Amino acid sequence: MASKQQQKLVQSLKIKKYRQLHGLFMAEGEKIVAEILKTGYAVKQLYALPQWLEQYADILKKKYPDTEIIPVPDAMLRKLSAQETPNNVLAVCPIQLPKLNENILHTQLSLALCNLKDPGNLGAVIRIADWFGVPYVFCSPQCVDVFNPKVIQATMGSFLRVQVFYQPLQNLFAQYPQVPVYGAVLQGSNLFTTPPPTSGAVLLVGSESHGIDPALMPYVHHPVTIPRRGGAESLNAAVATGILTSYLTMAAK
Amino acid sequence: MASKQQQKLVQSLKIKKYRQLHGLFMAEGEKIVAEILKTGYAVKQLYALPQWLEQYADILKKKYPDTEIIPVPDAMLRKLSAQETPNNVLAVCPIQLPKLNENILHTQLSLALCNLKDPGNLGAVIRIADWFGVPYVFCSPQCVDVFNPKVIQATMGSFLRVQVFYQPLQNLFAQYPQVPVYGAVLQGSNLFTTPPPTSGAVLLVGSESHGIDPALMPYVHHPVTIPRRGGAESLNAAVATGILTSYLTMAAK
Repeated sequence: MASKQQQKLVQSLKIKKYRQLHGLFMAEGEKIVAEILKTGYAVKQLYALPQWLEQYADILKKKYPDTEIIPVPDAMLRKLSAQETPNNVLAVCPIQLPKLNENILHTQLSLALCNLKDPGNLGAVIRIADWFGVPYVFCSPQCVDVFNPKVIQATMGSFLRVQVFYQPLQNLFAQYPQVPVYGAVLQGSNLFTTPPPTSGAVLLVGSESHGIDPALMPYVHHPVTIPRRGGAESLNAAVATGILTSYLTMAAK
Repeated sequence: MASKQQQKLVQSLKIKKYRQLHGLFMAEGEKIVAEILKTGYAVKQLYALPQWLEQYADILKKKYPDTEIIPVPDAMLRKLSAQETPNNVLAVCPIQLPKLNENILHTQLSLALCNLKDPGNLGAVIRIADWFGVPYVFCSPQCVDVFNPKVIQATMGSFLRVQVFYQPLQNLFAQYPQVPVYGAVLQGSNLFTTPPPTSGAVLLVGSESHGIDPALMPYVHHPVTIPRRGGAESLNAAVATGILTSYLTMAAK
């Protein structure tokens, strides 16, 4: 059974300030926790229904001898959960900071997101990066936190394979001026007739309502647009990122 | 001020059964309502802050003489709203049933969605259709209702330009066997080396968790896959639909 202190800790992790204070985040659900265990990502605490624990007893004993295992009834999981439809397992994990390998920046496509606030969209973008083999996602400091429970949920486990950095994007672009930046804009060149990069590049996507921060535009080498044939004013940010990423990684093998 | 009866009516429209009973749906927010007024879509009732009504007084008088205009304070809009962040205007509109023009089916790309349950995803897909000039979206009866307030919101007004049909997809495919069906599957041909259709076609997308209903697979002429280079098991349904639609409409002018 979860103690009052444990309950307080888990519930505090819904808020960024406390995630940073404790250096912890929560991840819920059979699918995501199974991926965590499979990849060997560190787990501090595991709250789960007894039947879930039984099923995973062997792997927990072998790979997670130091994890606190807390069997809880369904009602307690509902109380702890950050989701609308609660799950049968909830993991509390240490936040691991990403490490930058400059070589990857120079040889592969990276994503850069400017002020993406919607948790579902950031999660979907990390999943896109994972699908297309994009190892790095750079977020401006105003983006929603990747360790927000709704973002973790929307990544469907892809946060385990994609490194997400938070930093002023100006600094990134100024530091690596030789890496070409493709910027998603409304009045740029036709994406589909723009040659995809053959080496490292960054795809910069702005927020749905405000686009790319004008202060970043001087760093954009290739302003590109998904050609429009109908009446919509814009696409959902994750949908646009998916289309751009699919096209810009086409040349990659 | 909204009467008790009016309040009851608006709030009932959050539920499909009552939308069908009354033949009405609700649409909220400055942007979407402005698009409704611009396109001349019928409006039965308009609940709005006095300052909003002042701004739109001319257009309402000219184009909407028969609409019931109900000035309401902010607190009432919050009560009526189906959104988390309420708006300054809410329109109650008659549901207009789509009309099928066979010629369009034979000359343009249509989308068909199998059991798409997430309102945000259906809204994003209708926005994708609108962006790429796809006039028709066919939904299996198990899909979320397009007039669900969350779907209407996520379309950002694109529901005004895209016709959305609900019907068993088997019937559609059986009735138009000469229209080729591209099906999004995990083990199909590489999308990017599949020639896009040069005439009418249907893109069939399944649900994220269950894919395309096996009963529909015999109707799929071209099983296609977005090539994967990383570790994600799947893409968000709207993201996948965006990538597929962008590619399959490429040949269109």
